[in-house]
Amino acid sequence: MTIPEPNGVHAAWLPPEAFRAIGSRRTLVCGDGLLADTVRAEVSWACARHGGGLTDEPADLVLALSTARPLPAAAARLAGREEPGEQGFVLARHDGVTVVLADDPAGLLHGFFHLVRLGEAAFGAARPAETHRPAMRRRMVDHWDNVAVHPVMGQVERGYAGGSIFWADGAARGDLTRVRAYGRLLAACGVNAVAVNNVNVHATEAHLLTDRLGDVAAIAGELRPYGIRVHLSVGFTSPVVLGGLPTADPLDERVREWWAATTERVYETIPDFGGYVVKADSEGQPGPFAYERTHAEGAGVLADALAPFGGVVHWRAFVYNHRQDWRDRSTDRARAAYDHFQPLDGHFRDNMILQVKHGPIDFQPREPVSPVIAAMPTTRLAVEFQATQEYTGQQRHVCYLAPMWREVLDFRPWGPDGRAVADLAGDLVAVSNVGDDPYWTGHPLAQANLYAFGRLAWDPRLDPAAILDEWIDLTFAPAPEPPRGTLHALMDGSWRTYERYTAPLGVGFMVRPGHHYGPDVDGYEYTPWGTYHFADRDGVGVDRTRASGTGFTGQYPRPWSDVYESVERCPDELLLFFHHVPYGHVLHSGSTVIQHIYDTHFAGAEEVAESRRRWAEAAGRVNPALHARVRELLDEQLRSAEEWRDQVNAYFFRKSGVPDACGRRIF
Amino acid sequence: MTIPEPNGVHAAWLPPEAFRAIGSRRTLVCGDGLLADTVRAEVSWACARHGGGLTDEPADLVLALSTARPLPAAAARLAGREEPGEQGFVLARHDGVTVVLADDPAGLLHGFFHLVRLGEAAFGAARPAETHRPAMRRRMVDHWDNVAVHPVMGQVERGYAGGSIFWADGAARGDLTRVRAYGRLLAACGVNAVAVNNVNVHATEAHLLTDRLGDVAAIAGELRPYGIRVHLSVGFTSPVVLGGLPTADPLDERVREWWAATTERVYETIPDFGGYVVKADSEGQPGPFAYERTHAEGAGVLADALAPFGGVVHWRAFVYNHRQDWRDRSTDRARAAYDHFQPLDGHFRDNMILQVKHGPIDFQPREPVSPVIAAMPTTRLAVEFQATQEYTGQQRHVCYLAPMWREVLDFRPWGPDGRAVADLAGDLVAVSNVGDDPYWTGHPLAQANLYAFGRLAWDPRLDPAAILDEWIDLTFAPAPEPPRGTLHALMDGSWRTYERYTAPLGVGFMVRPGHHYGPDVDGYEYTPWGTYHFADRDGVGVDRTRASGTGFTGQYPRPWSDVYESVERCPDELLLFFHHVPYGHVLHSGSTVIQHIYDTHFAGAEEVAESRRRWAEAAGRVNPALHARVRELLDEQLRSAEEWRDQVNAYFFRKSGVPDACGRRIF
Repeated sequence: MTIPEPNGVHAAWLPPEAFRAIGSRRTLVCGDGLLADTVRAEVSWACARHGGGLTDEPADLVLALSTARPLPAAAARLAGREEPGEQGFVLARHDGVTVVLADDPAGLLHGFFHLVRLGEAAFGAARPAETHRPAMRRRMVDHWDNVAVHPVMGQVERGYAGGSIFWADGAARGDLTRVRAYGRLLAACGVNAVAVNNVNVHATEAHLLTDRLGDVAAIAGELRPYGIRVHLSVGFTSPVVLGGLPTADPLDERVREWWAATTERVYETIPDFGGYVVKADSEGQPGPFAYERTHAEGAGVLADALAPFGGVVHWRAFVYNHRQDWRDRSTDRARAAYDHFQPLDGHFRDNMILQVKHGPIDFQPREPVSPVIAAMPTTRLAVEFQATQEYTGQQRHVCYLAPMWREVLDFRPWGPDGRAVADLAGDLVAVSNVGDDPYWTGHPLAQANLYAFGRLAWDPRLDPAAILDEWIDLTFAPAPEPPRGTLHALMDGSWRTYERYTAPLGVGFMVRPGHHYGPDVDGYEYTPWGTYHFADRDGVGVDRTRASGTGFTGQYPRPWSDVYESVERCPDELLLFFHHVPYGHVLHSGSTVIQHIYDTHFAGAEEVAESRRRWAEAAGRVNPALHARVRELLDEQLRSAEEWRDQVNAYFFRKSGVPDACGRRIF
Repeated sequence: MTIPEPNGVHAAWLPPEAFRAIGSRRTLVCGDGLLADTVRAEVSWACARHGGGLTDEPADLVLALSTARPLPAAAARLAGREEPGEQGFVLARHDGVTVVLADDPAGLLHGFFHLVRLGEAAFGAARPAETHRPAMRRRMVDHWDNVAVHPVMGQVERGYAGGSIFWADGAARGDLTRVRAYGRLLAACGVNAVAVNNVNVHATEAHLLTDRLGDVAAIAGELRPYGIRVHLSVGFTSPVVLGGLPTADPLDERVREWWAATTERVYETIPDFGGYVVKADSEGQPGPFAYERTHAEGAGVLADALAPFGGVVHWRAFVYNHRQDWRDRSTDRARAAYDHFQPLDGHFRDNMILQVKHGPIDFQPREPVSPVIAAMPTTRLAVEFQATQEYTGQQRHVCYLAPMWREVLDFRPWGPDGRAVADLAGDLVAVSNVGDDPYWTGHPLAQANLYAFGRLAWDPRLDPAAILDEWIDLTFAPAPEPPRGTLHALMDGSWRTYERYTAPLGVGFMVRPGHHYGPDVDGYEYTPWGTYHFADRDGVGVDRTRASGTGFTGQYPRPWSDVYESVERCPDELLLFFHHVPYGHVLHSGSTVIQHIYDTHFAGAEEVAESRRRWAEAAGRVNPALHARVRELLDEQLRSAEEWRDQVNAYFFRKSGVPDACGRRIF
């Protein structure tokens, strides 16, 4: 196998320099099969650059499958005593030999990339055996990539990094070198599953399931050496659209047979196929409601078809009425997923995974955790993050999302002694931020979000700043002295900075309709989308209490149902998500709501200006082209942040009439 | 010549029944040439249906060119005594013979269609000679039709009646029967010029001037028998785009030569070609500013090229900064056309016509008359109306525009004793509302706008209700008893109804950005487009006074500069266009601004509901398909009007906090 090095594409967190520590050692790889061969090829590629080599014993480094025979002594010392477990590995260093031992090939591959991250630190002092196992069984990236360019949504829906790396202009790309390189990057941060097409399945894309399955198989072939299984978004009405049946009723026997036969053909072509991803009865996508069936019945027919082959169906919980009347204040989009799915808990198949967006609305910079996550004790859950920065600056703004994701994963629905979201989710899913841009993610610094997603899915207890350090060390390894302080200054707090200059206190939206970039405070206020702030001259916010509002707070268990219900106890950052309050309401911070709006918006824009200054000073310490790209993007971010600041402040000043206590300029 | 009767297309105001009076007479047509032949063919076509015939004397009807020899006695009585003049005709009835006498073929054609309008009334009692001459020399319809479908704007920019009747999918239509039928409709209401492509000249359309000129010639060939000359929108940078020159600088000799040679070729192909239409330095279209030349210099090079052939250039005055900063209250889009063009008065060629939108902004339902119209004493002017209902309901709402146009034409910039807009304009132009829809205009009742435009351009003193009667008589002639009362009830006041439920008191916009359909009060408030209302919790409106605002009022002569300047004297309907006032400001009507907003919005929506009821009652009195189409559109109009009502009322209630005096429901 050749290590993919596509031309003209940034190496991201796998530049050759990142392999210096391994590549300069004598390494023994023990084990057979595709992934062991990948590890061998990786070591060989690294050694060709840095002077080491593949060897028999004695070696500086041993990477071994526990099933390999003979097992070298250094590994044999661990085998039997330690249990790497599924996808895991044991790392130890003893007598000058570093050992990675894994029970399965995936663990071996993950152990190898763990060594890449450690670099020289893997070859220093002795290390007692430490076991690494992924917290999430499936660490998945969903691509909202269209095969045929959609007239409105383009090649990649909500994509901000150019075209698709899989598809171009109606067909699979001919040269898939970059797909393999992508698989390598994903494996290096722990991702092990990819959905290759948009959950909004349009006409062309529907055929990936049948006559265009060869394209999916080709992509699967490129990702397989890096331990990544391919999943496919499918339309619920495929039996009609593709099969010519008169119905897609999940209880119709012909429909069951069609799904079973179709799925069998998929596995004949792609034996390690991961499964289906489905968006049903959502934003115009068809679903079981058309046949008066439940979502459990709808998902069931797909799950049954996949079960014989070990496949799963990811069934998205993103179901709500997107033709709401803004005049009707009793309907609450935040309630929708819980109202639809909580009653179905216990009715889903074992290989059906309910895929829940982390917040109850739609990836706003600040939302509470979705109550669905705590409401499905007998249902397998995937929690969905959005790496693509639809509502967080569209990869023109620096917005490092790991701190937000970490907060979500740490949230404990039953209070400090209960389980956390990280314990409740079996899978973690990110909507991809990758395209055919030379930097993969448009904004070079947005690479860190993809990296951090993989790492958090492996270990949700990792510190976002520490993940960033890993990413900096790898990505900027060629530089003798990467601008670590500058990058931390730009990125560590960038999500909160973004939150400051956009919609305040968790109220959300206030974005330009359609493309969702830039401010428009009333942009969604009188629309059917269910995303309102209800600002008037006296106050702002959505009353979601049981006492006087939509009752959404009641979807949480205690203590949060009480905390969110209480205007006194509700956390400041979510106040306007749960309560409609006067502008003079005093926050826990001591500031009033209106002064908080002014202060945070001035502060947020100023923080961007400061980031821009810091970055200018870092010229010369990173690649000039990358520096220039980030510099230009920071110019745009500052312009946009000032626009947000001025529009939001002007809007609330015009409505409230309350002057800024500091006398700053409001238009 | 055959009279065009395209299949599946509504006859509009020329159904065969409308020709009964002429078609049942014995008619003599005297004169030679294309248009006399057209009249002869029309008479013959009518007689074939209604039993009359073409004849020699004695005749019931004589249509004669004054140059014809021998001139029949009935016509000879008038010749010498009456002077029909250019494009005009004399009508008389004496001794049981109706006579139309014209000096030129265009006059003969107009006289013929005048008889069609009169019907039996032309053959009753004796009539003394009456002379009819057009008020406007050029009565022109501009099509914003693209040849190639534009990815955003479609086949017809701001078109609400389907595709283009000229172009489809990148080429001229093969069958142009409908174009000839269109020319016939236009001639029958007095139009004599058509521009066949969008003033936003895109890549494909640029070539109409050169290698695709044959397409334009084919269209001209269809329109010529009805006395209509074809004009072409051209790009200012054509010498670069088409000619390969390094510059389009209007003072560059190569550029002058290119325009001269290119225009000569146009006239070789289309000898009666009308001229060019140009949008320069506007909304992204290039213009003379790029070469540091004035618009007089820019227009001059085109005018000089056209002059030898009698052609004209229509140069649009729609020049403004569409990248304005909403924070900058000193810039005023309303000022732009005057500021750009007034200093150039006296510098334009004789065959250059400055084409001015009737209001200073952009075809809002209520604007003051553009001050440019009074500011160019030595420049030829065309006043531009918008028949296509971009901001007036997009041909889903009934909005009969003749009353608005009539107000504009009657406006006297120097006060009641001075000249009116109708006296100042040499040409009247309408942006077309026609497409390939079976009813021509989408909404069947929108046909009346095109008809009324032509009639007002011929005679600006016509009463809009009388024009509507003409249109009803012709269009619904097949019905024994057309629902005249219902149509007047729906249409006479429909513009004011539309005004009531949309943006209040002349403030404009408040439409959804981009497509401009439906309400969005803040939709343009924080954009670069220069269209703001500045509503805050205390008041609303744009201060355009000299005393404290942008000074726009100073662009008018007295008395209007004083009337508009004065918050007391400013007409209610334009108050918020000129002044920012508190919600409690008392109007001349006695109502406050805020109560006026509530009252008019409730009233407007209720008027639409009443129209819908009236129309339902008219079932059976018009063609069922037409009735159904209008009924469906009225459903949508009512939904939309209620949406406007509720959004605008909710917005201003939330901002002002003032309750409705009548206690009606505001959300």
